[in-house]
Amino acid sequence: MNTKLSLDFGKIIRELRKGKDISQEELGFRSNLHRTYIGMIERGEKNITLESIEKLSKGLDVSMKLIFEKLNKIHQ
Amino acid sequence: MNTKLSLDFGKIIRELRKGKDISQEELGFRSNLHRTYIGMIERGEKNITLESIEKLSKGLDVSMKLIFEKLNKIHQ
Repeated sequence: MNTKLSLDFGKIIRELRKGKDISQEELGFRSNLHRTYIGMIERGEKNITLESIEKLSKGLDVSMKLIFEKLNKIHQ
Repeated sequence: MNTKLSLDFGKIIRELRKGKDISQEELGFRSNLHRTYIGMIERGEKNITLESIEKLSKGLDVSMKLIFEKLNKIHQ
């Protein structure tokens, strides 16, 4: 995809993951998503689904609300 | 799908649409999504993507942040 939206979303996920000091592999494990999929999301290469957004939020131990608050600040 | 998440998301979209007093057809037109797709989303039958969430938010003239604030209140 690599739309502005998916790129901005990916930035937020990477920022949150680094804030937790965990690898893509560890986030994949915690989210029940493949580590290569985490990489694609962070690079904005995927049009992620709502279900996967929820999995990521659980893996990151944050609310979906927080993710979209952060997205709102950088995405227009 | 009809997961708890997609059902809860659909409820929020329906509530927002009714608050604007517009039909599924009108929301489809404003969102550049098919009216039958709007119906499926509202009934929780689709695992919506991030790009379509953004289209819906634009069609509803609300932020994605607002949608997830509302979702956060009813979904756990």
